[in-house]
Amino acid sequence: MKNVKLTIAYNGTNYSGWQRQSNARTVQGEIERKLRLITKQEIEIHGSGRTDAGVHALGQIASFKSNLSIPINRIAFALNNALPLDIVIKSVEEVDMDFHARYSAKGKKYIYKIYNDSIRNPMYVNHSYFVNGNIDIKKIRESSKYFIGEHDFRGFMSSRSNVKNTIRTIYSIDIYKEENFIILEYKGNGFLYNMVRIITGTLLDVALSKINIENLDYIIKSRDRRNARHKAPPQGLYLGEVYY
Amino acid sequence: MKNVKLTIAYNGTNYSGWQRQSNARTVQGEIERKLRLITKQEIEIHGSGRTDAGVHALGQIASFKSNLSIPINRIAFALNNALPLDIVIKSVEEVDMDFHARYSAKGKKYIYKIYNDSIRNPMYVNHSYFVNGNIDIKKIRESSKYFIGEHDFRGFMSSRSNVKNTIRTIYSIDIYKEENFIILEYKGNGFLYNMVRIITGTLLDVALSKINIENLDYIIKSRDRRNARHKAPPQGLYLGEVYY
Repeated sequence: MKNVKLTIAYNGTNYSGWQRQSNARTVQGEIERKLRLITKQEIEIHGSGRTDAGVHALGQIASFKSNLSIPINRIAFALNNALPLDIVIKSVEEVDMDFHARYSAKGKKYIYKIYNDSIRNPMYVNHSYFVNGNIDIKKIRESSKYFIGEHDFRGFMSSRSNVKNTIRTIYSIDIYKEENFIILEYKGNGFLYNMVRIITGTLLDVALSKINIENLDYIIKSRDRRNARHKAPPQGLYLGEVYY
Repeated sequence: MKNVKLTIAYNGTNYSGWQRQSNARTVQGEIERKLRLITKQEIEIHGSGRTDAGVHALGQIASFKSNLSIPINRIAFALNNALPLDIVIKSVEEVDMDFHARYSAKGKKYIYKIYNDSIRNPMYVNHSYFVNGNIDIKKIRESSKYFIGEHDFRGFMSSRSNVKNTIRTIYSIDIYKEENFIILEYKGNGFLYNMVRIITGTLLDVALSKINIENLDYIIKSRDRRNARHKAPPQGLYLGEVYY
């Protein structure tokens, strides 16, 4: 028996998210289907976490246990040949038997890309959030400091989630410009469902002067989703890296 | 009666090309449908030329004549609100009555993007041509010189075309690297059907040492499509600009 770790990048545009569904095309579903073809075994893979429809990944991690007949170093090649072009296996490694992509994860990096211009760019519609208007990047930086550290992020979780422990630690939020893009890099020990998108929407509402920065303290402490602001759309979000 | 010039950018991924078709979604078809909604008139627009399914445009030009009741400076705003996000009207101008997007065109710029790495990048599958292998960019530059100037490009035209005059002038082919991309910019007085894609495929075959640079002279002079090399795929091609 081997324990195998996959590092996966995907373009989420044409998928109903990561998690297997019986009636929809998903990234996990596609990979499992191709693993079955290649190994002739029923293999269930475990991702580090779900991503929603339209969300992308640069370094999603998945793991599975199996008695593989095919050598480990052939799996990436075989899978990449079989998979659609918008999913790529970046690496395949054999890991200790106690490794689990989800339960062993110690933290994650998420990236959110905003396209800021007076006119939308049709090339980036599926890869960024188009925001027309004068975004004050200094205000995003200032506002982001309210979120750093350990907080109860209950107000920044989709109400569809029923996770009990909503305390998380954000280590850093790096914000920088690249041509017309404003890029936010979040690193933390874990993120609640839709947390990055709701924080991003809230930061943007400050930067677009829709709310005052002084309100952030109250918004966070209230732990109430109705006080946090709009949820930035999925196509700007990238799961960057999972830390173990 | 007014003569109106549109500058249009689009992501060709989800379209069966530019030209209106009765049974497929096309860029021209979408724009005409929205113009009808906005102006309550049947308007036929004329593009500077067709683009194939999957080909993109940064600056496609179209023109149409109409007795518009809506002010010219409102059309871009109204169209952009109505159009899908992967098509954008960059500008709308009133032009002389003798202007015609196709017949007045004096030249064009096309851009071809190659993604060169050992592993494909799922974010760029619809926006570039993934080539795995060691591309010698100096060889592309050297080879490109064979194509500059006035030539009979019959051998670099899709056999589905029945254009008679196959003589065209390429003014320049600029080649540069941007991270993992190799970008080719073609400027010329006109391009035959699939000409940029077949030249690009031929240049790549030299750069990948599949043919020798010395063969290019013969390949061009033979005027035979069977001697030219593979046609690079549509998703790497961008109509950059139309010159008048």
